[in-house]
Amino acid sequence: MGCSQPLASEAVSSPDRVPALYDVVGIGNALVDVIAHADDSFIELESLVKGSMTLIESDRAASLYKALGSGVEMSGGSAANTMCGVASFGGRAAYIGKVSNDDLGQVFGHDLRAVGVAFRPGAPAGDMPTGSCIIVVTPDAQRTMNTHLGVSSLLCPPDIDLDTVAAGAVLYMEGYLFDRPEAKEAFRHASQTAHQHGRMVSLTLSDSFCVDRHRDDFRALVSDEVDILFGNEDELLSLYEVSSFDEAVAAVRADCAMAAITRGAVGSVIITRDEILVIDAEPVDQVLDTTGAGDLFASGFLYGLTKGLPLVECGRLGSIASAEVISHVGPRPLVELRNLL
Amino acid sequence: MGCSQPLASEAVSSPDRVPALYDVVGIGNALVDVIAHADDSFIELESLVKGSMTLIESDRAASLYKALGSGVEMSGGSAANTMCGVASFGGRAAYIGKVSNDDLGQVFGHDLRAVGVAFRPGAPAGDMPTGSCIIVVTPDAQRTMNTHLGVSSLLCPPDIDLDTVAAGAVLYMEGYLFDRPEAKEAFRHASQTAHQHGRMVSLTLSDSFCVDRHRDDFRALVSDEVDILFGNEDELLSLYEVSSFDEAVAAVRADCAMAAITRGAVGSVIITRDEILVIDAEPVDQVLDTTGAGDLFASGFLYGLTKGLPLVECGRLGSIASAEVISHVGPRPLVELRNLL
Repeated sequence: MGCSQPLASEAVSSPDRVPALYDVVGIGNALVDVIAHADDSFIELESLVKGSMTLIESDRAASLYKALGSGVEMSGGSAANTMCGVASFGGRAAYIGKVSNDDLGQVFGHDLRAVGVAFRPGAPAGDMPTGSCIIVVTPDAQRTMNTHLGVSSLLCPPDIDLDTVAAGAVLYMEGYLFDRPEAKEAFRHASQTAHQHGRMVSLTLSDSFCVDRHRDDFRALVSDEVDILFGNEDELLSLYEVSSFDEAVAAVRADCAMAAITRGAVGSVIITRDEILVIDAEPVDQVLDTTGAGDLFASGFLYGLTKGLPLVECGRLGSIASAEVISHVGPRPLVELRNLL
Repeated sequence: MGCSQPLASEAVSSPDRVPALYDVVGIGNALVDVIAHADDSFIELESLVKGSMTLIESDRAASLYKALGSGVEMSGGSAANTMCGVASFGGRAAYIGKVSNDDLGQVFGHDLRAVGVAFRPGAPAGDMPTGSCIIVVTPDAQRTMNTHLGVSSLLCPPDIDLDTVAAGAVLYMEGYLFDRPEAKEAFRHASQTAHQHGRMVSLTLSDSFCVDRHRDDFRALVSDEVDILFGNEDELLSLYEVSSFDEAVAAVRADCAMAAITRGAVGSVIITRDEILVIDAEPVDQVLDTTGAGDLFASGFLYGLTKGLPLVECGRLGSIASAEVISHVGPRPLVELRNLL
């Protein structure tokens, strides 16, 4: 089904569809980040896997937090970061995710609304806390994430505001949500609704360990529902269980209408049936924290796509947004991305 | 009584006193800062007084927060910032303040302990939330603070851990706490305990509007109990209701054994019975956020004093700490201050 979908620009402009109220609607784990700096010995001592995302329970979250230095709290969550990026470019974005009524939940909702993202929170669930992600930033600017999902992982089909999904030119889903079965079901539910309304469906693979844990489900979703696949090189290799980037490109090309794959400092590659476009990374004076690099790449790419820009321009917007977010601490842009164009 | 006290270095080393376990023990409003950037039109629209601290109730906090852009949450609170500075220089610091068991209360406690400050929280009080301070940073790097005190203002005499106060070479109290009568009583209680144990008592005036509101009480406390007075030029003028700095210097000299008064970019002045020392500000490439400038000046000064350094060196440490904190967003040092020496 993925291959037969139109491009987003067509989905926006096609006369037989209701005009899209949003350019992009994101669904993801609603998390507040706790960002702290530590050196490599901390990573080793705490047996963390540098650069990865690990799910942790509340006890582990408490002990890890205790062991860390002073932190800064900032709203995060992969797809939420992407929606903030879309809004920062001037796009219309909405976000579906589950928070609690606690302090962090209020912070999360505020920070989305403050940048103009329409927030459609799922229903609260008892006294489960808002999810948080303890991010350890090492001197090499790598981020190592430790997520206590809290209430965010309880996202289930009734939490998906179908009117919002139906009103978005592109649905954007975060692979991290795949870690709980109910959320996976919510994904299917949302992507089917999007397609019923002639919208595009996109997915980001999020993390190679996450892909490892759920490879079959990811493969099925990509084949059945996904029009645009986001991910980095490692995640793509893991998805198709291949060892070279060329093999991975061939595999995704057979599977999906479009893929936008990031390769760190090397830049990114846009893959369609017809072409493979190589996009350079934007130069950055100093990389301070790579948190949000992939999320913001997706925001630029999706903003460009929904504005009907050529794919090479979409990729360039992704690179610009990535470069901004890795040049400071924190997962969301500190300037209006539209001012960087 | 203030004038008859020994210098802190004597208090530390004098053989007839129990050795001090802490260099400095701070008491203040325990607050988590919510820092957001806005331009001058926001200050005007919301009828804020730029550079000041205003107490707000929960409704106003909610509406102001809603009107602001994305924020960053960081532990703050004037005296708590100072204690973190003392610890960052390598000093032994403790802090007494009241937080709730909510998310922000946990963040506050963590961030103190993470830098090695011994936290002695007061007893929780029902469901009053942890205090917060909405800080609007304008493009001129000025900070305008709007404090919802929450549970912090309920600090009362039983919350003061007298063993901790007795174990600190210098007690450091924050004038902001003067806004509630019970806290004022807690101050008297703490300062009397400190003096009974042969310790020094210091006070920071905090804010000229705060001084205006409680001038008589401040004057009485300074005359009766305070050995070292901290404040900026405006606060000192307000305390003595004089119009020139020279008059203010003469007044404080007659009232208090020592005063350390900051004058922004001009630097600071240390005033004792015997001498008036003028200390230059440390140069800063770019001033980004003046939050914590006075708090960190006090940390350097107190660290130096408790280490027995000459007063001019104490002032220089204050300038170094101030310069670090105004060169980035947030009220606490981002580097170990001891590494800047």
